[in-house]
Amino acid sequence: MPKIIDHEKRRKQIAEATWRTILERGMEGATVRNIAREAGLSLGALRHYFTTQDELLGYAMTLVKEKAAARINEVAKTDLPPKEKAVRLMLEIIPTDEETMAEMEVWFAFTAYARHKGEEFHPQHDGILAYIRGLIDWLDDNKHLKPNLDKETEAEKLYAIADGLALHALLEPERLSKEKISRVLVQHIESLFI
Amino acid sequence: MPKIIDHEKRRKQIAEATWRTILERGMEGATVRNIAREAGLSLGALRHYFTTQDELLGYAMTLVKEKAAARINEVAKTDLPPKEKAVRLMLEIIPTDEETMAEMEVWFAFTAYARHKGEEFHPQHDGILAYIRGLIDWLDDNKHLKPNLDKETEAEKLYAIADGLALHALLEPERLSKEKISRVLVQHIESLFI
Repeated sequence: MPKIIDHEKRRKQIAEATWRTILERGMEGATVRNIAREAGLSLGALRHYFTTQDELLGYAMTLVKEKAAARINEVAKTDLPPKEKAVRLMLEIIPTDEETMAEMEVWFAFTAYARHKGEEFHPQHDGILAYIRGLIDWLDDNKHLKPNLDKETEAEKLYAIADGLALHALLEPERLSKEKISRVLVQHIESLFI
Repeated sequence: MPKIIDHEKRRKQIAEATWRTILERGMEGATVRNIAREAGLSLGALRHYFTTQDELLGYAMTLVKEKAAARINEVAKTDLPPKEKAVRLMLEIIPTDEETMAEMEVWFAFTAYARHKGEEFHPQHDGILAYIRGLIDWLDDNKHLKPNLDKETEAEKLYAIADGLALHALLEPERLSKEKISRVLVQHIESLFI
């Protein structure tokens, strides 16, 4: 059914134009009109793919999540040693290159914007906490985790470290290099291991 | 010089009207006109105290910092046991009540807004990292810190934990109670102690 595939491909292109618009102009500038221009579409053509601005922004955020999930799955499939794998898995959710920095920028702008938009948006439900709980469980199941750790507190702490580093990497990219981020993660993951 | 005192007092009242406006309407709604209305002033009267919107917003953010600094100084003066004091000092920079939640909300909205405003704003330079480095040094000077810790990495990690918890407390206040935040901080501070 090539028509449906084209439809989805076009929606992705529009989502990417949305990210570029947010990166250049901030959320204030992410109007349907500006996004259409960035995507090289008429306003009417864009409306064919997304009826409302909120639908478009929601979809653009979903794609950010999907891209991160795809990267995580790639790392999960490797057979790196457990410590290294755990660090690499955490690095996938912290902006350390142009692509992930752009994703974080979009997430940040979108989350701030959505806070005054009421209940339709739940950008915080990005699945990261569930993902980190899964990582702690995996370490535990494989007998890597120190005994007597409170897994729930450790998951909450690792979640805070991940989003704290992500926020600082976004706001102070010159101070917080990838090396510094890695050093914190390596040190922390090692502190969890037997 | 009562006139100067009145001037400063009025500027603070306007800054507080700015926070309320941001909390109610988001940054999009934090126009000089809306802030003047919230402060009960004419546009002309407001311009007497702040020439530009950026000057007003910058001052409102400075006041957020000053309020946090005043709370921190109060805790620093107490003679709590070191572990408890360290946890309390960290809790002062994480939103756990209505006042600090409002400060975080303003910080978040303002930071997102300022990212597309160029170089005049540096909301990330809030002094928190320097504050946390000072806390680690204080623990070290008083022989509480485990030997062989890399203090710079520990400061970066504690900074990430603080801002990560602050972000999550803002975005998910129902999930992340003050008790949960305290549990993470107590566990982490204890892990640093001899």
